Amino acid sequence: MALTLTPLLNIPLVKPGDDLAALIVAALGSQGLVLESGDILVVAQKIVSKAEGRFVNLATVNPSREAVDLAQQVDKDSRLIELVIQESKRILRFRPGTIIVEHRLGFVCANAGIDHSNVSGQIEGEECVLLLPENPDASAQELRVRLEEMCDVQLGILIIDSHGRAWRMGTAGVAIGISGMPGLVDLRGEPDLFGYTLRITQVGTADELASAASLVMGQAAEGTPVVHVRGFPYELREGHLSELIRPEEQDLFR
Amino acid sequence: MALTLTPLLNIPLVKPGDDLAALIVAALGSQGLVLESGDILVVAQKIVSKAEGRFVNLATVNPSREAVDLAQQVDKDSRLIELVIQESKRILRFRPGTIIVEHRLGFVCANAGIDHSNVSGQIEGEECVLLLPENPDASAQELRVRLEEMCDVQLGILIIDSHGRAWRMGTAGVAIGISGMPGLVDLRGEPDLFGYTLRITQVGTADELASAASLVMGQAAEGTPVVHVRGFPYELREGHLSELIRPEEQDLFR
Repeated sequence: MALTLTPLLNIPLVKPGDDLAALIVAALGSQGLVLESGDILVVAQKIVSKAEGRFVNLATVNPSREAVDLAQQVDKDSRLIELVIQESKRILRFRPGTIIVEHRLGFVCANAGIDHSNVSGQIEGEECVLLLPENPDASAQELRVRLEEMCDVQLGILIIDSHGRAWRMGTAGVAIGISGMPGLVDLRGEPDLFGYTLRITQVGTADELASAASLVMGQAAEGTPVVHVRGFPYELREGHLSELIRPEEQDLFR
Repeated sequence: MALTLTPLLNIPLVKPGDDLAALIVAALGSQGLVLESGDILVVAQKIVSKAEGRFVNLATVNPSREAVDLAQQVDKDSRLIELVIQESKRILRFRPGTIIVEHRLGFVCANAGIDHSNVSGQIEGEECVLLLPENPDASAQELRVRLEEMCDVQLGILIIDSHGRAWRMGTAGVAIGISGMPGLVDLRGEPDLFGYTLRITQVGTADELASAASLVMGQAAEGTPVVHVRGFPYELREGHLSELIRPEEQDLFR
C-alpha cells in the first residue's frame, strides 16, 4: 500500500566499464534488501554515463565557429558549447550563463545535460565533462534484463536526471531512460465519482517517481545514486522515454 | 533513512465547513499511524477547496465580453472562462481546448486550476466548479497549527495539485501551498566530491515531494487525498509557495 523509497548506501564510485548490475546487487545485499517482482530501481544518470565511459576530455574538443560565437554570448567555455551543440537538435534559448536546448534524445534541458561537476578527476590533470548515456532507454533495458536474470524477478528501471523547469524555481528529477515500467499512465475517459467523464488526464508517472527518487538521492554528493522503490501503484509494462516527450506541435512553450 | 509515503484510506468525501484536521487525525488513527515530529502530510488541493466552500454555481456567473470572445476561441463555456479570467493575472497562451494562465497565486497552470470533475453533484441539479483555495499557504499553516496542537508534534504540510508541463507529456504533482517545510533547498556553493564548486543547484524539494505524493494519491477517484510522509531528507523550516515561483524576468519561457 505504501510507496517506499530506500537509497542504496554502498554503491562505490563508478568507473568506465563497471558492471552496474553487480554493484547494485551487492549494495542491496549489504542492506539486507531482497528484490521482489514489481520493485523498481531508480538510477542516477551520472553513474550510467560513467559506467559507459561517456567522458570527454575538453582538451580534445575543437570548437566550431558557431560554438565560439555562442560561448561568448553565454560566457562559457567554447569547447563545452561545441559539445552542447553536438548533443542537441537545436538551441531553444540562451542568455549569459544559460543555454536551453532540445537534446538529441528529445527532451528540453539546460546545457544538453552535460555534467561538469564530480567529473574532473577522471583523467589526471585534465578537465573532463560527462555526456548523457548514448541511449538511456537501451541502458535501462540492459540493466533490467541483467538484474532480472541475476535475481529472478520482474523489475522496472528508471534512469533519471535533474532538470530545471519553465515557470518554477528549483530542479526536479525527471526520467531520461525507462524500461519495464510505464512512462505515462493514461486515465483519459475514466469516470469520476459523479459519473462526469474525465476528458484528459495523462499522468507523468515515471517523472513523478523520478522526482520522488531524486529527493532521496540528494544532489551534492554521489553517495546514493540508486534508489530502491517498492509499492509503485501502477502495473509494470514496457515503457519508453518517448512517451514523456511532448511533440513540438503540441507544445505552446517551445 | 527510507522515504515512506502512505495514503490515508479513510478520508470521507469532504463538504464545506468540514474540519480537515479532525478528518486526518481520525484517518491516521484508523490505520494505526501515529504522527512523529518531522512527518509531513500532503493534502490534495481539492479537499482543501471543498472544505473552504470554494464552489461556484455556473448559473450565477455573468460572462464578460472578453470571456465570451475567449470562450469561443477555446471552445469552452463562457461562464467558466469568466472565472478563469477572474482567477488569473493574465492569459499566457490559448488554443481550442486549452488556456494557460498565470494564476493570481503566481504559478502558471491550465484553466486557472478550476476543477470541473468530481464537483457537479455539489448543488442539486446545478453545474458547479471548484476554485483553488483563496490562500493555500495560509490554509496549509492553519492545518499545520491545528494538527500540531492536536498531536503535539512538529509537522510539515503540503497542499498539492496536478499540473501539465511545458515540453513533457503527462501531469505531475506540484506544491501550491506550503507550511513548516522548505519549498526549495539551496545547494549553491557546496563543493562536490572533487572539490569543484557546484555553481547553482536549487532543488525544488516541495515539488519533488508533491510529485511523489501525487503518484500515491492516484487521480481518477478521491479515495486517498491525503498522504502521510515519513523520512523527508531535509530539515523542516518555515516555507512558502513563493519560493517556487520563477520571477518573470528570470523565465525564458513565459
